[in-house]
Amino acid sequence: MILAVTLNTALDVTYDVDALVPRASHRVRAVRSRAGGKGVNVASVLTLMGVPVTATGFLGGRTGTEIADDLDARGMSHSFFPCAGESRRTVNVVSAADGDATIFNEPGPDVTAAEWSALVDGIPELLIADRAAVMVLSGSLPGGVPEDAYAELVAIARRHEVRTVVDADGVALRLAVTAHPDVAKPNVAELAAATGEPDVSGGAEILHREGALDVVVSAGREGVVAVLRDGRRVRARLRRALTGNPTGAGDALVAAVAASLAGAVGSRPEESRLTGDVDWSTTTVQAVAWSAAAVLRPLAGDVDPGDVARLAAQVELEWS
Amino acid sequence: MILAVTLNTALDVTYDVDALVPRASHRVRAVRSRAGGKGVNVASVLTLMGVPVTATGFLGGRTGTEIADDLDARGMSHSFFPCAGESRRTVNVVSAADGDATIFNEPGPDVTAAEWSALVDGIPELLIADRAAVMVLSGSLPGGVPEDAYAELVAIARRHEVRTVVDADGVALRLAVTAHPDVAKPNVAELAAATGEPDVSGGAEILHREGALDVVVSAGREGVVAVLRDGRRVRARLRRALTGNPTGAGDALVAAVAASLAGAVGSRPEESRLTGDVDWSTTTVQAVAWSAAAVLRPLAGDVDPGDVARLAAQVELEWS
Repeated sequence: MILAVTLNTALDVTYDVDALVPRASHRVRAVRSRAGGKGVNVASVLTLMGVPVTATGFLGGRTGTEIADDLDARGMSHSFFPCAGESRRTVNVVSAADGDATIFNEPGPDVTAAEWSALVDGIPELLIADRAAVMVLSGSLPGGVPEDAYAELVAIARRHEVRTVVDADGVALRLAVTAHPDVAKPNVAELAAATGEPDVSGGAEILHREGALDVVVSAGREGVVAVLRDGRRVRARLRRALTGNPTGAGDALVAAVAASLAGAVGSRPEESRLTGDVDWSTTTVQAVAWSAAAVLRPLAGDVDPGDVARLAAQVELEWS
Repeated sequence: MILAVTLNTALDVTYDVDALVPRASHRVRAVRSRAGGKGVNVASVLTLMGVPVTATGFLGGRTGTEIADDLDARGMSHSFFPCAGESRRTVNVVSAADGDATIFNEPGPDVTAAEWSALVDGIPELLIADRAAVMVLSGSLPGGVPEDAYAELVAIARRHEVRTVVDADGVALRLAVTAHPDVAKPNVAELAAATGEPDVSGGAEILHREGALDVVVSAGREGVVAVLRDGRRVRARLRRALTGNPTGAGDALVAAVAASLAGAVGSRPEESRLTGDVDWSTTTVQAVAWSAAAVLRPLAGDVDPGDVARLAAQVELEWS
């Protein structure tokens, strides 16, 4: 079982407009709402791929209830902690004229110290109840949550012999790696911004030095680069890049890595607990295939398992 | 008492961003929400001006509850009819770089025939319970409501000897005037679009011919033009135009006209029921003053009574 944590859960709202014109008043043709936030998308992909997962994090207010209702409608297992503030919305304005999307991300609620404390105290119970093998920590931190939130949660997971994947950026990423997550997963731009190193190997080296075990970097059309704790490095990418919707592709990638760490994909579960024995050839191939399958779908958190199987055969690997 | 009807009530949400950039992802710095829709703004202005008013129309879903909560917090009297669909939101993106606003209007719920019927059946009770002298009908019609909705409601009001002000556009306006509302209030652009007549007098003549009693046209910085049933015409405007936020200025204008028809402003209540005895000099002066006071406030539905009093002294009148 995988526990997917989203501290700043969102209701992703899409507005279809004829064309986006700054300073104009727009008639929205259609409104679609869907539970989102990076960890929710990870949980959604895992659910669609048949890998047991529970989504957790904070939910608050009427928007929080709407998010929970959508998770129920999608058949997703979830167990969230309440917060008094209102969960955020993101508004994604899609222009029919050119298909382009313009996104507005609300900041999200201010979480109180007591609410954060209740989540920290409740996570061990969830890990035990779900017999979790892996915990995924994804996305931005809401206000009020300490900057080292992910480090604190990684430390809890390690005490319970649960593997961790952290998909974060900035200070949250830098502080998270000090707690030795199994995998740190920034994208190329996030790695460069967080470390000040423009080069992937240089940035990964900094994360390794500060405590990350393996570092997986998503590079868009350039695929995935895993820089491993033993110094080896593997790049996986599609032989021919796809065009489509890149939103949520990184979350599908994280889902594949988490599934691999949990023994659900391409590695041997009986040997996989905290031993660093992950089959990184299979893991990176799957990561590219899941990510590419997400690009083919218009909504974040969505993949077709048939696409994943087909695309996995089109991935090339390069060890160095 | 005035009854202010908003069939397509809204939650007006303001997003502060650094600058609006099409195709970019924006961090929203602050989110503010407020009950809106044109009739709600009318009721808000009347409440602030001390004129008794009840807001009604449809509210649905969680957004509907949020709208009702905001009305309560603002001390506004309301009595809405439920609909199963979700009340709409409008998202107003304000750029800190230039102060410009870009607006996205959700279409609103689809109202069922049974829900519409319940409102039509319930309005007489509200008119009686509130001892209504005037009913105001403002804004767009939600899906599922018949195009002649305003005509039907005007007819009901007339049966109860309640005066009516209709602030609508397009087909809804053209059909509304056939039921003989006391005042039809389009703005210049709406009048031209609805009638095909670019000239205010020509457009007003069409509305008169089709059944409107008096026609009041808002003309932005050019003030207000009232084209009366007896052929006279009066223009009122500020000696010096103001700069500010024009959103909601038309609603404040409608509020002043409704207050005047109700005998709360500048006319003699004992003589004012359905007799066409409105003092149009005072009414148009107040309409300009209320509207200009709204321009000075950043939020629609807001006026400072002190501004209204001060601005009323700066209005010039021209009868023709």
